[in-house]
Amino acid sequence: MGSFNEFFADYNCFATAEGLLAAGRADINVTYDMFFRELPDKGGFAVMAGLEQLIDKLSSLAFSEELLSALKNEGFSDKLIEYLRDFKFVCDIYAVPEGTPVFPNEPIVKVQGPAIQAQLIETLLLNTINHQTLIATKANRVSRASSGRRVIEMGARRAHGVDAAVDGARAAYVGGVDATTLYPAFSKYKIPVSTMMSHGWIQLFDSELEAFKVYLEEHGDEGALLVDTYDTLESGVKNAVEAFNSVLVPKGLRPAGIIIDSGDMTYLSKRARRLLDEAGFPDCDIYASNSLDETLIKDMLNQGAKIDGFIVGEKLLTSASSPVFDGVYKLCETEQNGVKVPAIMVSNNVHKITTPCSKKVWRLFDMESGKAIADVLTLDSESIDDEKTYSLFDPDFTWKRKTVDNFVARELLVSVFKKGECVYKVPTLEDVRLYCKEQVASLWEEVARFENPHKYYVDFSGKLWGIKQALIEKITRGADGEFAEVENV
Amino acid sequence: MGSFNEFFADYNCFATAEGLLAAGRADINVTYDMFFRELPDKGGFAVMAGLEQLIDKLSSLAFSEELLSALKNEGFSDKLIEYLRDFKFVCDIYAVPEGTPVFPNEPIVKVQGPAIQAQLIETLLLNTINHQTLIATKANRVSRASSGRRVIEMGARRAHGVDAAVDGARAAYVGGVDATTLYPAFSKYKIPVSTMMSHGWIQLFDSELEAFKVYLEEHGDEGALLVDTYDTLESGVKNAVEAFNSVLVPKGLRPAGIIIDSGDMTYLSKRARRLLDEAGFPDCDIYASNSLDETLIKDMLNQGAKIDGFIVGEKLLTSASSPVFDGVYKLCETEQNGVKVPAIMVSNNVHKITTPCSKKVWRLFDMESGKAIADVLTLDSESIDDEKTYSLFDPDFTWKRKTVDNFVARELLVSVFKKGECVYKVPTLEDVRLYCKEQVASLWEEVARFENPHKYYVDFSGKLWGIKQALIEKITRGADGEFAEVENV
Repeated sequence: MGSFNEFFADYNCFATAEGLLAAGRADINVTYDMFFRELPDKGGFAVMAGLEQLIDKLSSLAFSEELLSALKNEGFSDKLIEYLRDFKFVCDIYAVPEGTPVFPNEPIVKVQGPAIQAQLIETLLLNTINHQTLIATKANRVSRASSGRRVIEMGARRAHGVDAAVDGARAAYVGGVDATTLYPAFSKYKIPVSTMMSHGWIQLFDSELEAFKVYLEEHGDEGALLVDTYDTLESGVKNAVEAFNSVLVPKGLRPAGIIIDSGDMTYLSKRARRLLDEAGFPDCDIYASNSLDETLIKDMLNQGAKIDGFIVGEKLLTSASSPVFDGVYKLCETEQNGVKVPAIMVSNNVHKITTPCSKKVWRLFDMESGKAIADVLTLDSESIDDEKTYSLFDPDFTWKRKTVDNFVARELLVSVFKKGECVYKVPTLEDVRLYCKEQVASLWEEVARFENPHKYYVDFSGKLWGIKQALIEKITRGADGEFAEVENV
Repeated sequence: MGSFNEFFADYNCFATAEGLLAAGRADINVTYDMFFRELPDKGGFAVMAGLEQLIDKLSSLAFSEELLSALKNEGFSDKLIEYLRDFKFVCDIYAVPEGTPVFPNEPIVKVQGPAIQAQLIETLLLNTINHQTLIATKANRVSRASSGRRVIEMGARRAHGVDAAVDGARAAYVGGVDATTLYPAFSKYKIPVSTMMSHGWIQLFDSELEAFKVYLEEHGDEGALLVDTYDTLESGVKNAVEAFNSVLVPKGLRPAGIIIDSGDMTYLSKRARRLLDEAGFPDCDIYASNSLDETLIKDMLNQGAKIDGFIVGEKLLTSASSPVFDGVYKLCETEQNGVKVPAIMVSNNVHKITTPCSKKVWRLFDMESGKAIADVLTLDSESIDDEKTYSLFDPDFTWKRKTVDNFVARELLVSVFKKGECVYKVPTLEDVRLYCKEQVASLWEEVARFENPHKYYVDFSGKLWGIKQALIEKITRGADGEFAEVENV
């Protein structure tokens, strides 16, 4: 089981590496940014995730002899084969810590090093961060929609393969889900695991009642009963009550709960709640599970559904309503003969124009409320002094300005690899999850809301803005494809 | 790289195994069906895929000592540990061959064997077939929308993890895509691989023109040029023409193509076509790539876009417009003391009611047109004699009947495992792909169309229908959850 163990790259990464070696450009020092353009589900923010996976993968980068001989047979140059055989990763990497809310058009990972290496890891880096961030973001929405109720992730059966399930469960936990039902996610990541009765179990007994009793004998107060195999109210809940009374009560145990997996769950949960209360089990939790997502959960709760926990499957692990995280990896600076040259891509789609230069990302928090005010992108050579007032500046609508004081400025990009060596202490998954909760709480509720969230400010320093404008003007005026030279101060 | 190597199951599969052993019910002979309820994208059919992967995974089923000792530490019974240590897979499996068009509510995989084993493989089986079938189905739509133009799959950077990319590329190839850009998909599955220039390459040179020239020196007539880094028409296409003239023409080579990755691609392709034709390169292909899917492709072609090939990324490998394949795995029969007992689940959602009994699936083809007329589910003990006329019968609207003659009946479920041993000769990927094309061509165009397709008939034999009705009536009238006993003839 598990997946293929081969260096994970688009063919183009090898072709480009070969071409750069041939052209004598392999060692040009470059800076690449990973950033994204659009938020899933038209939300207000995304939740950064996947850094631990990325570190694991980059720490073990190597090219097997099998791969090298395959590349050779495919006609790749000896120069490339030799380079890969002696490969030693030497890049610097900066990244936003996992669990941090992140916003469009700011770097969330920054890679600096020789061009040949920085481009070789593109597919691997994007695949890892895009997937994990997508699911953590979705899980955070689902978790917030449930308003403190327990959320159990159960999406493995319809996730897009084994990784999507196992690593997806991890991302879901980062985003705020409470447990997974998937065994390898539990054993690999120590995520709390939850079991869920199957319809198959019930059907293997002569009656639903017998199936419930045997189950409770086995699981005591830890197993919830699935009550919708034949008829939720007329059969399932009634048999559950009978089984509780005959198996648990004599032992002094209380029931873990019941699970409703079909039908009109708002209606059924209200009716089931009444039946359980009347039978003396007001402490028996009701779980719901049937293609749920944050929209359905909010809707059910708004209608007064009596549900204590949600079991959320494929709509979480595929992020079904918005299944793509659109992170890209773009060159933003090269260094040639010791001079830093900003790089830009000026697309016919205005929103695809990139932001040049190696950058820092600052998040400004209001001292009084603790809330995040804005993010600011600056040149590496700049700092934001939070002892002074700072003038925010909208890069799209430059007449929009705002002066802030009484704030703390924190750099978001932290050093992860230094000359190819990991220098980052990876926090525990529990700590990442708590940090996520805390950081999401630092957003204004207008930014965090589900529908029409307020657009969080991602601003530029004046210097960065100036360089970008000058580059765009130079290229669009010249339109000769000449590489712009603008001094990076 | 690659994913976790652990037995892939929901925790519940182990809990149920333990419970069945404790209750002395582990060896009850059961039949499970995998089937699905809804077609992705409201399409007319799905394309079965993933059988080769499933066979690989089931052929190597084993439980490591590491896993066993973990299960022991988690409190699982010695009986379960011993069972798993001595595990030998003994189930029979029948499945629809990969590449076959399949329809809702018919078994596409059937598992028969001891209850403990049949339920243990649920997560693994569903994850594999759901993912592969989802992507093969989407790829078939994309491929058909492109009307014979070349389609290159390039979704790895936004797929849901490594498996989703590598195995997804395989499913895409089954469904009709022509090539992948992902190296490990090529090396593992021998799918034709295609390289694609990156913006990063261009930005590493002093000018777009120089980047193009160096690229063509390297790749000759095999590398298409990406023309949208600065300005598609004013810079990219002009520089491409200059580079073709200066590098390729003197060598007697013709250009592979240009790639447009942004902007209004219908408009740009028409303008670029004219520029290329005027410059003496009417044979230079134009590729488009920018978050494409079948809807956009059809739309562009309807508007007369001059595009010879499509590079399709995340919207294919995540099946973005419909990212869930809703396959389920349900008990349909048990054998107790030598007597076969049909099993059913009667849900409050009518469409979730299952179809009892171990079944055969027949596809009836019209002898004259070669087209598929309908599928029919029968009991194992029944046959459809295509020498005689056959009366079709709609299981939902029983007054709908149709008499067919001059047809061939073919059984869709073929034997894959016999007593745990694989007895199926897995066809090559090329053969699967060709078979898919041929089988899709056997569907009436009304079934195959994209919008409001005609619903293909999946009918029941009279006997099967009778058993299902009797069971539903017994349960809904009794509503006591008693397991229905209806004789399975």
